[in-house]
Amino acid sequence: MSQDALERLYRPIVPDLALVESEILAALEADRHEIGEMTAHVGRYSGKKMRPAIALLIAKKCGGILPRHHRLGAVLEMIHLATLVHDDVIDGADMRRRSATANFKWSNFDAVLLGDILFARAINLLGRLGDAGALDELTQAVSTLCEGEILQNRHRRNAELDEALYYRIIEDKTAILYAAGCGLAAHLAGAPLLVVEALRTYGLELGTAFQIVDDVLDLVGDEATVGKSLGTDLRNGKVTLPVIFMRESATPADRARLVAVMRGEGTDADAAWLRQALVDGGHVEAANVRARDHIRRGLEAVSEALPDAAPDLAEIAGFVVVRAR
Amino acid sequence: MSQDALERLYRPIVPDLALVESEILAALEADRHEIGEMTAHVGRYSGKKMRPAIALLIAKKCGGILPRHHRLGAVLEMIHLATLVHDDVIDGADMRRRSATANFKWSNFDAVLLGDILFARAINLLGRLGDAGALDELTQAVSTLCEGEILQNRHRRNAELDEALYYRIIEDKTAILYAAGCGLAAHLAGAPLLVVEALRTYGLELGTAFQIVDDVLDLVGDEATVGKSLGTDLRNGKVTLPVIFMRESATPADRARLVAVMRGEGTDADAAWLRQALVDGGHVEAANVRARDHIRRGLEAVSEALPDAAPDLAEIAGFVVVRAR
Repeated sequence: MSQDALERLYRPIVPDLALVESEILAALEADRHEIGEMTAHVGRYSGKKMRPAIALLIAKKCGGILPRHHRLGAVLEMIHLATLVHDDVIDGADMRRRSATANFKWSNFDAVLLGDILFARAINLLGRLGDAGALDELTQAVSTLCEGEILQNRHRRNAELDEALYYRIIEDKTAILYAAGCGLAAHLAGAPLLVVEALRTYGLELGTAFQIVDDVLDLVGDEATVGKSLGTDLRNGKVTLPVIFMRESATPADRARLVAVMRGEGTDADAAWLRQALVDGGHVEAANVRARDHIRRGLEAVSEALPDAAPDLAEIAGFVVVRAR
Repeated sequence: MSQDALERLYRPIVPDLALVESEILAALEADRHEIGEMTAHVGRYSGKKMRPAIALLIAKKCGGILPRHHRLGAVLEMIHLATLVHDDVIDGADMRRRSATANFKWSNFDAVLLGDILFARAINLLGRLGDAGALDELTQAVSTLCEGEILQNRHRRNAELDEALYYRIIEDKTAILYAAGCGLAAHLAGAPLLVVEALRTYGLELGTAFQIVDDVLDLVGDEATVGKSLGTDLRNGKVTLPVIFMRESATPADRARLVAVMRGEGTDADAAWLRQALVDGGHVEAANVRARDHIRRGLEAVSEALPDAAPDLAEIAGFVVVRAR
């Protein structure tokens, strides 16, 4: 998707995104200047606000954007920001969006607590929505996404990690929050249960596709666009879909070399070879095809339940998949 | 307070504490065995359940214990457990209650996420109480306690830390959760606002006293009773009330030696000297007197608003202070 297409998609919700931003800024305020400096820093991580934008676009198609949708958008974005802060601690990252990460600027421990503050304040904001279903679903989603991150950590350098476990991890750590955001946007607009469920399915498939593409971009993306150094996952022994595909079809010798890289026992040359082999063997493209399959399934769910929204939702989905090219 | 007195205090709420325990165990269940193993491990940190017990005793005096009080107790204990898990990461502790800490058994990162899971599940349980006030107060309390921990970290080795900042830190990281627990126990029993406010004051003073005494015990406690090695705070440059008292009245030479220890520039002999000087100079006792003052103020607040509860609340408070002897 071009920058133009993204702008066209966002144009009708620009004023609403500004209201989401105001909610976030208000929720990040702090009496203590030490804390205010930290929350303001993380506020600057917020970029395209994809999660709030999707929620707003869905609300628009489900009867209209209400003040509660601005709040939902702020909650989704703050939960996302909290996970970014914690991810940077876990990955030992020092840069995000061209500025120092919280862990680098302060310390791992401060960053951990900062993430928790964001979680707590997001849930505080959510509580003020007064919707028991939303509260239940999103607090469960926060627990689940932490569980997904633990699972992922636990299986770092597990060269035998299979597709079922890969899917479970990305569903937990990424897709469930998308599913909750999309479903709740419809629910809070007063949509019937059938529509809410269809949008939850759309969110789950979109989030799954997003993570598959995100993993692919770490292998073959453009450093300038992706905004971080590539190949990090391979170096950290994170097994992703192209690696699983290649492992399952490789010759015994190639398989052994792949396993060595994933276990951190390979040379730099082995890692470079693997990255090239993943592309040349069509495994990266196979993962992209898989992402498009998920998008297709998500769009099928909404095209029946909410045909009016299908074109916009297809455009959003296109934006997720096109990042892969 | 003897073991007998504590048992006498707990006896009427033993069945209720068992129900709190059931709520906690149910909330800690996990589909994924990797997660279930971790949450079960942390469940074993739960000991005397002081926070739930106080909430239950207050409820009893405010009209009776209701199912929502068992849930409140579980939420308070789970938030407390989450902070213990994070504290152990921050302190690099390897033992708690005679078993390995989560950070030692798994990793710092897993422990951080485990703490977050506990927070998220506590708030999920809290949401199912359906009380907007409780949700608002406790989610704010979680944010505030993280902010207090950041402040404390930030002022580690700050030998100039003054009494006002010390109080702000212990209020944020400890006392506010006590205040919320005590106030909400009364609120959820249907007590009038005046009683709720009095119990919030009691909780704030009790929590403040608790933390002062906890800091003192790190200097002069009995290792077997306290269950951890002593002098950790001095080694880590954590400035506590006795240190502040001594610094303000010491000779220039002693003051310089104290400052050197707090900054981590002293020898082991300097640290041993400081610990002895804090006792011999009466500064430890002065901190204990201060803790008793807070308890007295807390009891004054409740003796007017809820005279029936005063004897029990005095017994609870006595238990907190007596740990100092």
